[in-house]
Amino acid sequence: MEVIDQLAPERSKSQFDVDAMKIVWAGSQHAFDISDRMARLVASDPAFRKDYRVTLGRKELFKNTLRKAAHAWKRIIELRLTEEEASKLRTFVDEPAFTDLHWGMFVPAIKGQGTEEQQQKWLPLAYKMQIIGCYAQTELGHGSNVQGLETTATFDPATDEFVIHSPTLTSSKWWPGGLGKVSTHAVVYARLITDGKDYGVHGFIVQLRSLDDHSALPGITVGDIGMKFGNGAYNTMDNGVLHFDHVRIPREQMLMRVSQVTREGKFKQSDVPRQLLYGTMVYVRQTIVADASSALSRAVCIATRYSCVRRQFGSQDGGPETQVIDYKTQQSRLFPLLATAYAYRFVGEWLNWLYTDVTQRLQANDFSTLPEAHACTAGLKSLTTSFTADGIEECRKLCGGHGYLCSSGLPELFAVYVPACTYEGDNTVLLLQVARFLMKTVSQLGSDKKPVGTTSYMGRIEHLMQCRCDVQRAEDWSKPGVILEVFEARAARMNVACAQNVSKMPNPEEGFSELSSDLVEAAVAHCQLIVVSKFMEKLQQDIAGKGVKEQLQLLCSIYALSLVHKHQGDFLSTGTITAKQASLVNAQLRSFNAQLRPNAVALVDAFNYTDHYLGSVLGRYDGNVYPKLYEEAWKDPLNDSVVPDGYHEYIYPMLKQQLRTARL
Amino acid sequence: MEVIDQLAPERSKSQFDVDAMKIVWAGSQHAFDISDRMARLVASDPAFRKDYRVTLGRKELFKNTLRKAAHAWKRIIELRLTEEEASKLRTFVDEPAFTDLHWGMFVPAIKGQGTEEQQQKWLPLAYKMQIIGCYAQTELGHGSNVQGLETTATFDPATDEFVIHSPTLTSSKWWPGGLGKVSTHAVVYARLITDGKDYGVHGFIVQLRSLDDHSALPGITVGDIGMKFGNGAYNTMDNGVLHFDHVRIPREQMLMRVSQVTREGKFKQSDVPRQLLYGTMVYVRQTIVADASSALSRAVCIATRYSCVRRQFGSQDGGPETQVIDYKTQQSRLFPLLATAYAYRFVGEWLNWLYTDVTQRLQANDFSTLPEAHACTAGLKSLTTSFTADGIEECRKLCGGHGYLCSSGLPELFAVYVPACTYEGDNTVLLLQVARFLMKTVSQLGSDKKPVGTTSYMGRIEHLMQCRCDVQRAEDWSKPGVILEVFEARAARMNVACAQNVSKMPNPEEGFSELSSDLVEAAVAHCQLIVVSKFMEKLQQDIAGKGVKEQLQLLCSIYALSLVHKHQGDFLSTGTITAKQASLVNAQLRSFNAQLRPNAVALVDAFNYTDHYLGSVLGRYDGNVYPKLYEEAWKDPLNDSVVPDGYHEYIYPMLKQQLRTARL
Ligand SMILES: Cc1cc2nc3c(=O)[nH]c(=O)nc-3n(C[C@H](O)[C@H](O)[C@H](O)COP(=O)(O)OP(=O)(O)OC[C@H]3O[C@@H](n4cnc5c(N)ncnc54)[C@H](O)[C@@H]3O)c2cc1C
Ligand SMILES: Cc1cc2nc3c(=O)[nH]c(=O)nc-3n(C[C@H](O)[C@H](O)[C@H](O)COP(=O)(O)OP(=O)(O)OC[C@H]3O[C@@H](n4cnc5c(N)ncnc54)[C@H](O)[C@@H]3O)c2cc1C
Ligand SMILES: [Ca+2]
Repeated sequence: MEVIDQLAPERSKSQFDVDAMKIVWAGSQHAFDISDRMARLVASDPAFRKDYRVTLGRKELFKNTLRKAAHAWKRIIELRLTEEEASKLRTFVDEPAFTDLHWGMFVPAIKGQGTEEQQQKWLPLAYKMQIIGCYAQTELGHGSNVQGLETTATFDPATDEFVIHSPTLTSSKWWPGGLGKVSTHAVVYARLITDGKDYGVHGFIVQLRSLDDHSALPGITVGDIGMKFGNGAYNTMDNGVLHFDHVRIPREQMLMRVSQVTREGKFKQSDVPRQLLYGTMVYVRQTIVADASSALSRAVCIATRYSCVRRQFGSQDGGPETQVIDYKTQQSRLFPLLATAYAYRFVGEWLNWLYTDVTQRLQANDFSTLPEAHACTAGLKSLTTSFTADGIEECRKLCGGHGYLCSSGLPELFAVYVPACTYEGDNTVLLLQVARFLMKTVSQLGSDKKPVGTTSYMGRIEHLMQCRCDVQRAEDWSKPGVILEVFEARAARMNVACAQNVSKMPNPEEGFSELSSDLVEAAVAHCQLIVVSKFMEKLQQDIAGKGVKEQLQLLCSIYALSLVHKHQGDFLSTGTITAKQASLVNAQLRSFNAQLRPNAVALVDAFNYTDHYLGSVLGRYDGNVYPKLYEEAWKDPLNDSVVPDGYHEYIYPMLKQQLRTARL
Repeated sequence: MEVIDQLAPERSKSQFDVDAMKIVWAGSQHAFDISDRMARLVASDPAFRKDYRVTLGRKELFKNTLRKAAHAWKRIIELRLTEEEASKLRTFVDEPAFTDLHWGMFVPAIKGQGTEEQQQKWLPLAYKMQIIGCYAQTELGHGSNVQGLETTATFDPATDEFVIHSPTLTSSKWWPGGLGKVSTHAVVYARLITDGKDYGVHGFIVQLRSLDDHSALPGITVGDIGMKFGNGAYNTMDNGVLHFDHVRIPREQMLMRVSQVTREGKFKQSDVPRQLLYGTMVYVRQTIVADASSALSRAVCIATRYSCVRRQFGSQDGGPETQVIDYKTQQSRLFPLLATAYAYRFVGEWLNWLYTDVTQRLQANDFSTLPEAHACTAGLKSLTTSFTADGIEECRKLCGGHGYLCSSGLPELFAVYVPACTYEGDNTVLLLQVARFLMKTVSQLGSDKKPVGTTSYMGRIEHLMQCRCDVQRAEDWSKPGVILEVFEARAARMNVACAQNVSKMPNPEEGFSELSSDLVEAAVAHCQLIVVSKFMEKLQQDIAGKGVKEQLQLLCSIYALSLVHKHQGDFLSTGTITAKQASLVNAQLRSFNAQLRPNAVALVDAFNYTDHYLGSVLGRYDGNVYPKLYEEAWKDPLNDSVVPDGYHEYIYPMLKQQLRTARL
């Protein structure tokens, strides 16, 4: 079969400079270059093949991941890659692995919570991977409630050691990635007990395994917690269980940047403020938002390309059928997802800036913006991960039956992605934190304490409570100012209404708890406003390339208006828009979708994903879907023979009515 | 560890007769007895164990399914089970298998489309499983558009045979369950060509494999299409690919109940009306709705029990922490799902009645209610499967991190369930069919043609267009009449608005296509009304048992009001309710949720699911979650050894900086 670019007609329709858009998506020419180089490096190296992954049993799958991680590390050393390059390379290897936790949690925990001395001792070992570490916080019985952890670290002044112990079954560490089979060390969170007093949860560096033969050290029981969602997927990761039986570690292995225990067993708070720890949290959450945009954009890329290849119904006079992307229902399901991938990309970029800003302020002992930054990142983590998880599954459905095949890439993308809604803070628990912050913000309106950063719109509360949207024709919905104001008004009004309702309750705590569902919705409204406003701010920048800015404007409008439509209940019940205006939103969305249509494929090409990284027959760059689907099918182990294993024992006797006597 | 019923305190709180509720859920004492007996039969037979399923490779997994299917069939024969019992037994074996298609599609296709003679020839073979059949409609290139199928069946008068042929790659049959490895026969849909003319798609019985050695017959290429979503899950099914190279079958193997080809090759339409075929469709869709309620109720059962076991935060004075089910956000996410499981159970029951009604009418040559029955079942299939798929995933998230483990049962439940949104009609395509029917209904209002069945509310269109909801206090939302009317008014107004907007377009086809997203939303509104109204009708019946009816009333209200809240944009934009009334909905929901809370566990106990069928450590009847999670973990193959396979090749050299020289 001769291969041609089936999507060439789509590509020739596009109205903007795709190469320029690639730079915008990547963030800069520099970022693009690195990404592009690393993606090709991985894609062209047969050692990184991943297409057979779903047929492997757990042990083979895991061993295969160990191999890839080692190979990746070898290449990183051989090519003397920078940290930035190495991290990109790992991204494109596209397989959850112990290295994610080593680099993403273990190293940052030591950096953030270790003293200078501790950093000097441990970081070089970690940087060279002479030790491999994980992040052991969650227990069988406690995840969200970190303060409820049960593992104890009791100081023994006689030996100058901490005794790490798991007093109950539920205190077993449970979930840490990299723990089950690989890590030699862990940052373990445990209740610090000294002098008979419980000082709450602190971090400790604990060696788990022998560096000679990898056996578990005395007192340590460690293993894998078993299979997780999906095929391949997260089962490449050894999320682990860990039980301590009075394990002793030197006192110096408590992470002591913020609190210390002295040789005498005295607990001390250092003058380094606790808030410093928030910096790491902002950093980690920012990467999660960036990951959301990657995951969603991959799914959207697959669904968009396949929707152009797939034709169904509507053939006239024996001509080709309609491309399913031309159905308006397909567009109104797909294009908002495409727009959202871009929206999250830019809010992720902004969070990157926020992280730098927070870090600089912390260094200057300015903690004023921390609560706002904390709420904002918590809210965006929750918003983007929940939406992305649903969005990936919607993309799978948009591909009809074929989306259900592993070779579509979408099932695995979903299964790997969904835990992002849970780890680093359960999304509902996070939104409740945002809500608490917003209620405080509302209660302080009119006082000296002015709302800052992403809440500064609340400073215009009088206006926002009574302003009227003056959309009269559908086209009015293309004005950024109009859109921004309705998002601000909706968020402000919902949060003020919540605050009022809470205040009517016997006491605020009870009110908060009773009304928590409403509060969560108000928090979502606030977070959506942030994304919309950051997208609009991005559009204020100089953006090079023919037609690029126009496309981004279109995407921004589709993002915002699809939310107005989806949440029209909020906008209507707060009186922010009228029913008539709501119906004009639909009309304008239809027109925007039609404008987007010729650019759809080019807009997903701009993500610059290799076929290797996409890992999808449906999303192939060349659109050569059917022959490849057919080819892939035959690779399944079940097709090793025409007559399946088990035929003689189970099928033949059934057909021949000989089951009665069979032993099954 | 001593095992006690951790959930006993929950069970003692409940305010109704659980045993009586079990009968209501099952449908009758008879249905309950059978279900209960079959569930226990399966659960107590070690041959039906399923807990290790997720760790099996494809071949082992498939062979294991063959074994179970044979064992099930053996037991069915040994115990002389009735058809009803046998079908329940298969349900509780809980593993997608070729037998589903044999009994669920192959047999019904012959019954529905075969002549008396054909039925007499083929059904006895099928009933004894002397042949095994599947349903081969979908092709690589065509699923939704059945009329676009490419496989040909060309009549050859010389030999009195049809020549079945796959003229293109995309004409390969693709997806049929049971086809890949097991079926000896298939009902194949192909374009009937005789006398040089194409008479469109018809069904043919085609033998695929030798009954002696299972080899593929000449001209037939057949295999499995490869891995699908999830672990275990649907990979127990051999969805297949099938390519014909001029395969000859006797003329008598065309299914000839509705159309025939004569010995001379003349195409004839029999006097049996084509509509008869709709009967089967109503039947199949009714089973899909029933499956939706099973799948959702299983997920809800797991999430409800675990939410009572799981405690997080809120410990006062060292006492136990708060059960997460007591958080209002958890309730407002979970209880509507519980209510929906019941709602779908009853609408399924009603569809069962509808099927009987349609069948009787068909026999009496009364086709008047067919279009309505067709639209209604299409809509309910779409509504219930989409909601259930999302609902299962929401239940998984409600279980926090532990829901991501396969041992929670939820990942596999989801992965097995989601294709229901696609097979038997893509959900969006189905809703568009409903919309088309509704537009026709609206256009006929005022004419002689009165709306029937589920559309009869449209007969009161004048009233519904202008009626006002007179809810003034939250409690007013507990009146069924009030709720029913707002659902009717919303559905009526949305559909009338769509009809008006379509009529403003240059032509109706273009209008329909342009506005199809709005039309789909209006169709959903109509379908939700059906579910609400059937639940209310159920409550009109005599229902025995202390407190049972009260609980059902509560569930019905929660079902309906949670929809009003979720879709408040619809209700507000159509002026059906006011913003004030919308906020009273929330208040009333909070109060209903509080009323439901003490009954939550008993309401899921009423499903009468065995621990085997639930297949979930989190959902165990006795709530003994933590010790069992711990126990399960160690069974993973990765835990066969402390030091993982691959350590020496990949981890040791990494730690010892010896990778440079390693071959990976
Ligand atoms: C794939 C994966 C990888 C992980 N990796 C790591 C790791 O490397 N290291 C590590 O330490 N941990 C790890 N975790 C654990 C993870 O951090 C926790 O699972 C997460 O914090 C959620 O906590 P939980 O499981 O206790 O959820 P729970 O708190 O038990 O949540 C259950 C339900 O209760 C609700 N709920 C809980 N509290 C409240 C409240 N106050 N108000 C309202 N509702 C509430 C939640 O919304 C949820 O619906 C991982 C988890 C997963 C799934
Ligand atoms: C697990 C599983 C089991 C199956 N078992 C069988 C079986 O036993 N036998 C068998 O014959 N088949 C089987 N099928 C196939 C199944 O019936 C089809 O996949 C299904 O009918 C959907 O068709 P499609 O895949 O062509 O989707 P498509 O029609 O390609 O859908 C792709 C997208 O296009 C959209 N779309 C298509 N047409 C329109 C339109 N007119 N207007 C608006 N949007 C449109 C859809 O909404 C969807 O978003 C099975 C499928 C699965 C997943
Ligand atoms: Ca204005």
